[in-house]
Amino acid sequence: MTFEKVAVVGLGLIGGSLAAALRKSGEVGEVFGIERDAESLRFALEGGIVDAGSSEIGPGISGSEIVVIATYVDMVAQVAREVSGFVSPDTVVCDTGSVKAPIVREMEKGPRNIRFVGAHPVAGKETSGVRESDPGLFSGKKCVVTPVEGTCPEALSMVKTLFSLAGSEVVEIDPESHDEIFSLVSHLPHAVAYSLVSAVASSGGDRDLFGFSGGGLADFTRVAESSPEMWAGIFIENRDALLRAIRSFSGRLGEIEKAVASGNVEDLGTLLGKARDSKRDLGK
Amino acid sequence: MTFEKVAVVGLGLIGGSLAAALRKSGEVGEVFGIERDAESLRFALEGGIVDAGSSEIGPGISGSEIVVIATYVDMVAQVAREVSGFVSPDTVVCDTGSVKAPIVREMEKGPRNIRFVGAHPVAGKETSGVRESDPGLFSGKKCVVTPVEGTCPEALSMVKTLFSLAGSEVVEIDPESHDEIFSLVSHLPHAVAYSLVSAVASSGGDRDLFGFSGGGLADFTRVAESSPEMWAGIFIENRDALLRAIRSFSGRLGEIEKAVASGNVEDLGTLLGKARDSKRDLGK
Repeated sequence: MTFEKVAVVGLGLIGGSLAAALRKSGEVGEVFGIERDAESLRFALEGGIVDAGSSEIGPGISGSEIVVIATYVDMVAQVAREVSGFVSPDTVVCDTGSVKAPIVREMEKGPRNIRFVGAHPVAGKETSGVRESDPGLFSGKKCVVTPVEGTCPEALSMVKTLFSLAGSEVVEIDPESHDEIFSLVSHLPHAVAYSLVSAVASSGGDRDLFGFSGGGLADFTRVAESSPEMWAGIFIENRDALLRAIRSFSGRLGEIEKAVASGNVEDLGTLLGKARDSKRDLGK
Repeated sequence: MTFEKVAVVGLGLIGGSLAAALRKSGEVGEVFGIERDAESLRFALEGGIVDAGSSEIGPGISGSEIVVIATYVDMVAQVAREVSGFVSPDTVVCDTGSVKAPIVREMEKGPRNIRFVGAHPVAGKETSGVRESDPGLFSGKKCVVTPVEGTCPEALSMVKTLFSLAGSEVVEIDPESHDEIFSLVSHLPHAVAYSLVSAVASSGGDRDLFGFSGGGLADFTRVAESSPEMWAGIFIENRDALLRAIRSFSGRLGEIEKAVASGNVEDLGTLLGKARDSKRDLGK
């Protein structure tokens, strides 16, 4: 047994899948879940996703060696404060949020009686909720942990072990670099996907356009099924990096627009070729 | 046997797959291929993708009931003129291009000794070339045929039969509507994909960003592997509709950018929710 007790706050897709993966690992004595939504909590309890659970943060989490906060990113700091009232001093607390710098920097101010480590298991699908939980969700995927100067080495090591047990390949990146990287590889693509479906829907009139989406659209818009509330929180938390990414993208699209308008097929081909090659370079 | 002889000009992914599908159907006596690239032609001949072939348009295509022009869109009209010199009067000629109105309207002017039908089998992948040929490429996918007032009903019927033999579900749409629809569901998404990889590559510095593309990028950028030369031709041929689509998209992205900049998570959530719902409406 690697851990006697781990608590997971928020049994959505990520929290539920993590709880299920930890139980399946056989390396955690008790997985305790906190979930406000009664229906979701019952599903998690009856489905064996958690060993025990509660609808609110309270004495039930005491004795946990690690508390994982798997809520929306804009709630992490508040939840950490609540958690700190029910756990032993020096309990390790981590999150699972897609944005790291604002959370990690906020947590540097306290609460002082917990040891916080920022974490982002890179996984997810366009569906959400505990019913979509999958103990294999993290298998072979990266989990970024974002230690800072004040991070306790033992706490960092424990969090890395926890996500390894769930199947993740754990990597360390500083919180600011994490947010820059994910503004490009995740947040910008989501903003683009939402814009694309919105534009297509508004321009397409009454036609059944998705009947023709084999031509390219389907690949892009599956992602726009993701929870708007969750992504609004992520976008705002990572505002500055995302706005830079959007401006960079708009600049590139503007170049293509200009080349299309000019009607010069060679120039346009050169431009698209450069984009294709940059993808290939990055893919190495 | 439905057809005694069919010729396919241009053995790329589409032409090669169509030839292979027609041979596999057992309903075409001879599939004759024209391909300028010697290596590709040899591959098609040795791999049994075509029964016979030639490196240029010539007497080899005579006797064909249908000649399919599967070249880049900007070459269709020129190839049709060449074809018309070697076939019996009233031979049916169709194309496979992703843009229809410019080609169909150009072909209304002649050559008069062939009967032209515009066609667009909606299929493809990010790879190209005859080596990627797949007789199942069109299976269950739509093929849009674009008859106009002067289209010969018998020729239309033959072309519909041909693509049905290849596995397509054939639908009729007028050329202008086709181009409007595909500017949205295919050409705009490709322009967006090229812009996205270009922006990510230029902003990411030396980091291995695609190691993190499980966060969303991978879904969007596979498409940007597509042939830049081919897509440059498609974009320019469908210039007006594509420019309208890009402007509509940029407007939507601008709204998201503004909401992100404002920092109001509720407003942003509402905006993203509307986009998500419009996708759901369209997906019906």
